[in-house]
Amino acid sequence: MSSDLFGPLFVPDDLRKAVSGRAWLQGMLDAERALAAATGTEGVAEFCDAALYDLDQIAREGRAAGNPVEPLVRALRERSGIAEAHRGATSQDILDTAAMLVARDARALVVGELDGAARACAGLADAHRGTVMAARTLLQQAVPTTFGLKAATWLAGLLHARRTLLGVELHAQLGGAGGTLALLGDRALDVLRAYANELGLAEPIVPWHTSRGPVRELAGALDLAAGAAAKIAVDVILLAQDEVGEVRVPPGGVSSTIPHKRNPVDAVRARACAQRAHALVAVFTGEHEHERAAGAWHAEWEPLGELLALTGGAVSAVRTLVETLEVDGDRMRENLRPQTTSEAGRVVAPEDYLGAADAFVDRALARFREDVG
Amino acid sequence: MSSDLFGPLFVPDDLRKAVSGRAWLQGMLDAERALAAATGTEGVAEFCDAALYDLDQIAREGRAAGNPVEPLVRALRERSGIAEAHRGATSQDILDTAAMLVARDARALVVGELDGAARACAGLADAHRGTVMAARTLLQQAVPTTFGLKAATWLAGLLHARRTLLGVELHAQLGGAGGTLALLGDRALDVLRAYANELGLAEPIVPWHTSRGPVRELAGALDLAAGAAAKIAVDVILLAQDEVGEVRVPPGGVSSTIPHKRNPVDAVRARACAQRAHALVAVFTGEHEHERAAGAWHAEWEPLGELLALTGGAVSAVRTLVETLEVDGDRMRENLRPQTTSEAGRVVAPEDYLGAADAFVDRALARFREDVG
Amino acid sequence: MSSDLFGPLFVPDDLRKAVSGRAWLQGMLDAERALAAATGTEGVAEFCDAALYDLDQIAREGRAAGNPVEPLVRALRERSGIAEAHRGATSQDILDTAAMLVARDARALVVGELDGAARACAGLADAHRGTVMAARTLLQQAVPTTFGLKAATWLAGLLHARRTLLGVELHAQLGGAGGTLALLGDRALDVLRAYANELGLAEPIVPWHTSRGPVRELAGALDLAAGAAAKIAVDVILLAQDEVGEVRVPPGGVSSTIPHKRNPVDAVRARACAQRAHALVAVFTGEHEHERAAGAWHAEWEPLGELLALTGGAVSAVRTLVETLEVDGDRMRENLRPQTTSEAGRVVAPEDYLGAADAFVDRALARFREDVG
Amino acid sequence: MSSDLFGPLFVPDDLRKAVSGRAWLQGMLDAERALAAATGTEGVAEFCDAALYDLDQIAREGRAAGNPVEPLVRALRERSGIAEAHRGATSQDILDTAAMLVARDARALVVGELDGAARACAGLADAHRGTVMAARTLLQQAVPTTFGLKAATWLAGLLHARRTLLGVELHAQLGGAGGTLALLGDRALDVLRAYANELGLAEPIVPWHTSRGPVRELAGALDLAAGAAAKIAVDVILLAQDEVGEVRVPPGGVSSTIPHKRNPVDAVRARACAQRAHALVAVFTGEHEHERAAGAWHAEWEPLGELLALTGGAVSAVRTLVETLEVDGDRMRENLRPQTTSEAGRVVAPEDYLGAADAFVDRALARFREDVG
Repeated sequence: MSSDLFGPLFVPDDLRKAVSGRAWLQGMLDAERALAAATGTEGVAEFCDAALYDLDQIAREGRAAGNPVEPLVRALRERSGIAEAHRGATSQDILDTAAMLVARDARALVVGELDGAARACAGLADAHRGTVMAARTLLQQAVPTTFGLKAATWLAGLLHARRTLLGVELHAQLGGAGGTLALLGDRALDVLRAYANELGLAEPIVPWHTSRGPVRELAGALDLAAGAAAKIAVDVILLAQDEVGEVRVPPGGVSSTIPHKRNPVDAVRARACAQRAHALVAVFTGEHEHERAAGAWHAEWEPLGELLALTGGAVSAVRTLVETLEVDGDRMRENLRPQTTSEAGRVVAPEDYLGAADAFVDRALARFREDVG
Repeated sequence: MSSDLFGPLFVPDDLRKAVSGRAWLQGMLDAERALAAATGTEGVAEFCDAALYDLDQIAREGRAAGNPVEPLVRALRERSGIAEAHRGATSQDILDTAAMLVARDARALVVGELDGAARACAGLADAHRGTVMAARTLLQQAVPTTFGLKAATWLAGLLHARRTLLGVELHAQLGGAGGTLALLGDRALDVLRAYANELGLAEPIVPWHTSRGPVRELAGALDLAAGAAAKIAVDVILLAQDEVGEVRVPPGGVSSTIPHKRNPVDAVRARACAQRAHALVAVFTGEHEHERAAGAWHAEWEPLGELLALTGGAVSAVRTLVETLEVDGDRMRENLRPQTTSEAGRVVAPEDYLGAADAFVDRALARFREDVG
Repeated sequence: MSSDLFGPLFVPDDLRKAVSGRAWLQGMLDAERALAAATGTEGVAEFCDAALYDLDQIAREGRAAGNPVEPLVRALRERSGIAEAHRGATSQDILDTAAMLVARDARALVVGELDGAARACAGLADAHRGTVMAARTLLQQAVPTTFGLKAATWLAGLLHARRTLLGVELHAQLGGAGGTLALLGDRALDVLRAYANELGLAEPIVPWHTSRGPVRELAGALDLAAGAAAKIAVDVILLAQDEVGEVRVPPGGVSSTIPHKRNPVDAVRARACAQRAHALVAVFTGEHEHERAAGAWHAEWEPLGELLALTGGAVSAVRTLVETLEVDGDRMRENLRPQTTSEAGRVVAPEDYLGAADAFVDRALARFREDVG
Repeated sequence: MSSDLFGPLFVPDDLRKAVSGRAWLQGMLDAERALAAATGTEGVAEFCDAALYDLDQIAREGRAAGNPVEPLVRALRERSGIAEAHRGATSQDILDTAAMLVARDARALVVGELDGAARACAGLADAHRGTVMAARTLLQQAVPTTFGLKAATWLAGLLHARRTLLGVELHAQLGGAGGTLALLGDRALDVLRAYANELGLAEPIVPWHTSRGPVRELAGALDLAAGAAAKIAVDVILLAQDEVGEVRVPPGGVSSTIPHKRNPVDAVRARACAQRAHALVAVFTGEHEHERAAGAWHAEWEPLGELLALTGGAVSAVRTLVETLEVDGDRMRENLRPQTTSEAGRVVAPEDYLGAADAFVDRALARFREDVG
């Protein structure tokens, strides 16, 4: 509701567009067009452009029906004059398919940000193999490590999230009023396949109107990506403290009262986005009764878009954060407490204590090249 | 992001307006005006009208600062020519105060819906003292009860939520950059008091920049109200099943494929709103570090508005649901299974089994009159 | 399941006992005893001692019934030979009442810990009025404040949680199989009152078998207390960082590899407890259908005990943390960055920048004396 | 804490054992043994039996250290006389590895229950291809479907969860105090590989002390399985209502007051378990700072075991539920409302309206044979 004020603060423009009401509307129309194509219904396709419809009117009329598809189908039939439009589908088919199209496009943007953030981490990992710093456990200095290994750990987290997110299959939805595709007769399965192909979505084994595993899986994968971003953000915020000073963000995070502060605004935004994303995941654990849920389905719509947007917001902010991070290797070394390099009473040089740090960096970089290139 | 499409479906217009970006903007400006009044800074008040500002520009410029107050203050100073505007406050003072103003106005609307829903439940409770029906435990028929007692239980839930929600104190926020009100000198406490009075908000003991109990308490109270509404919704959905048929909703929940269905759309929307509200509460459990949180604060803004709106959406939908509910007392009696009125082998008339049902109805109605009037 | 290993790590012994299976069993028997007293059923009371029953057997036999009350009532009737035992009640009456008795006793322990933690914070607030330190926003130094004000803010958070927690009314549950108290005849309301009085619990307006607002409210209040504790913990962890060094915890948090570290173990445990408590709150937002929920009720039992225990664990750990905290006022002053005391280019002494810090400390201490004494 | 009373009610014995404190203790000792084997440290293996240690003492002594590994290592060194035991590892290595071993064993049990539940669903799907019933949307009758398709949809949900759960890689953890394996010198990577092989766990690219994606992924996959079970449970509860009567559970869910009721106790327990599992997932979204989290790690331990146990409890209950379900095909047909078979005013026979129902059953069964056999 207040996304006009707060949306631009947290979410990149392209992502906001990808999950906008208009994108959902176009997704529904794309589903209708694919259905028309799959069933050979002519005269529908040219009316499947969101620009032809009044979003606000559909939104308001959707209130009585409990979903926006019913008024949209009415409008589509009126405009096209094709009463057969939508035939064979139910509202949920169209809206679930639209959700997956929105998810596909927004996911591509999120993955783009993950790639960028991963590349930036890979750069830091490679450049800072020799930058010795304190490993910190429970926020107390432990033993020496390298900033390269820290960045490699960030990288590994991003890559894991990326694999998981890309591993989620996005399915077309088509089942008709009861999940049997009854109105499509003998060619039902052919229509289902053509519909999915037309849309570039996976074909499900059975309609998933109330078998919401794939949606839940998508939500979890997004949460994972948001968490991988938040991990980086919290580390940077801690390293950027005045008293630690091992990294700095560029000037620009303007404070209204204290001009000299360098507020880690990107990291702050990333954490805020991630915290909101984490909370939204719970929406996707509702039970879906029988062949269409009485509420749990409706609860998913807007949060799915928000989850995509906020995950992208978190990753995008972290990408900028890492791309512009100033690393102060001297300060890292100065901060090293003597005890971090003592062992059984014997003080050792930090460099003698780095063990497999470089090897781990290599392994993470190899994975990066394999996955992102 | 997609609230242009889905917002009107779930949330009443007045509530959407009350939590809109513009309402937040006006809340911030109201805070600035109150501060000017409390500090005797002239020339500011007349520029504290949201209509004078470009919401979109402030939203976009807020990205760099990490909050929308910084660009707003710049604009306010430019327009008014008063460099002293905002002096003594920090961004969080203004935004937290705006949040409480938004919460106050939206809460009033939610309470209005609670009153309406409670009144409708009270009406049903009173009218259906003699309407015998099956009590159902684990969704199996147990013993007889009355629909009056069921409605009284709904009523009690709404009244409890109403008391809790009204019991949450909404505090003004004013602390300055570090929570000490340093720039306000000797008159700091006087300014704080005047500021709170001016706004009609409670005066806090200490600034609550990172002591977020009151916000969390508000979130919990809203969640309670959403839950009280969802309880009613789920009962109605179950009673409205074809095979139960003890209540009916009015025609109008149009199905795109099956015209005769009477879909309990209001109940469905209420549950969807409540499920989303429940999830959002988790946002308000973040830890706020030191004197301003690095993310946990920023995460609260939009979800607070959403939580207010969705709670209101749930309660409003339930109000309509209960106000328009058709109760079929004959069907309730017909549905009663014999075993529900047997006791130790002896079959008794349902009427002999109603115990304190009427007395409980009286108690709930008395509480309704006490609380709502 | 693994609470034998992890329970003692996080939760004080008395609290674990207060929420143990045996405490629940005794609570159920106390409910049966109170019912017998209220209905004048003789011969039951002397068999209402948990020591007489085999907890494990009741647990196992409860599986078939879906709750532990059914086997307990069978055993109670067998032992006492009183077939009238339990008459008038349903399983949920006994278990919900037991839950409230467990909650009452455990809450008293949590409040005791809150009192102790508040007293320790009050002591710090009073002692450190003059201890200048940096206020930190977004984890960057902002302007000066005092450690006294920081402790006063912690105190205010604890006192708010304490008020909210003590404000939750705990109700007896008695409704019989369908919520009508049918089997108790004309004296139903008298029995209800006597039952509640006997137990020292509040008397509800109507049975709350599926109107779970009060349980949800309790869960929220506990969450609030856990959050107030976590806020203190995170601040201490940040202040105790090697590079900040403004507070120290006593030696004793033994590291297996680095003997000199002073790990802030109490703070770490507090945060862990709080994070778990926050998550558990979501359990209490389930919908309860008709007159007994098919799952949402059963989901509450163990989490309610856990929530009480973990909240107590968080507050207790913070109490120890604050009671034993070593504050390094010199380091606080040294750490102050010059920019934190510059204003419009003019450097000022920190002491000139403390504004209402002392006054806020006074206000928090006054509230402490009012609430805790 | 009250798991002695409530544990057996919800969780099968073998699963409770698999996530017990003793299982965790043995997991830690298995990790120590594998480390000794990988580093060639002799004299340790024979002391790596949990039966040799006092669980309660380790639990209590773990309080000061903030984890149970520290006292365990002390005890292991004392008993074995091998001071080199544990050398190269840090506490988190041992506990994280134990967590993965516990997860592996418990997951195998959960998958076993999934297999059983899937087999039972497959049996119903195959047997009930011709059993016509109403599809229900928003809990209102829509068009005809078959019980076979409903069971096939349940099956598809279980199979999706099973694939996802089995797809989660469980990694050994070994990094040493700072994640660099510093103490293991040149052979660090060899030791890591041998350690993972010894344990039968995957070898991670880099230590994942604070890169918690894999744990979060596991939590999400468990949640998915719990949700797939809850979906079945809610459908059965709805079908088993007196007024619907399309399925029945066997007698045995004993009610304390109404002997004739057939309470769907297994379904109720499944939903309760799932609701608790859903809530626990939020624990795994905490931010892990630097090289060991100050709280977020500690928060994971017990909830991971609970999540495994509750997921298994949900699936196991559903397995029994489906295996023993009595399906009343006659009642299903009788319940069919006329409007569910009308189309454009024309009443059609339900059999003419089943479309691809059989084909979807075939597809789900094929997937079952492929995945489970």
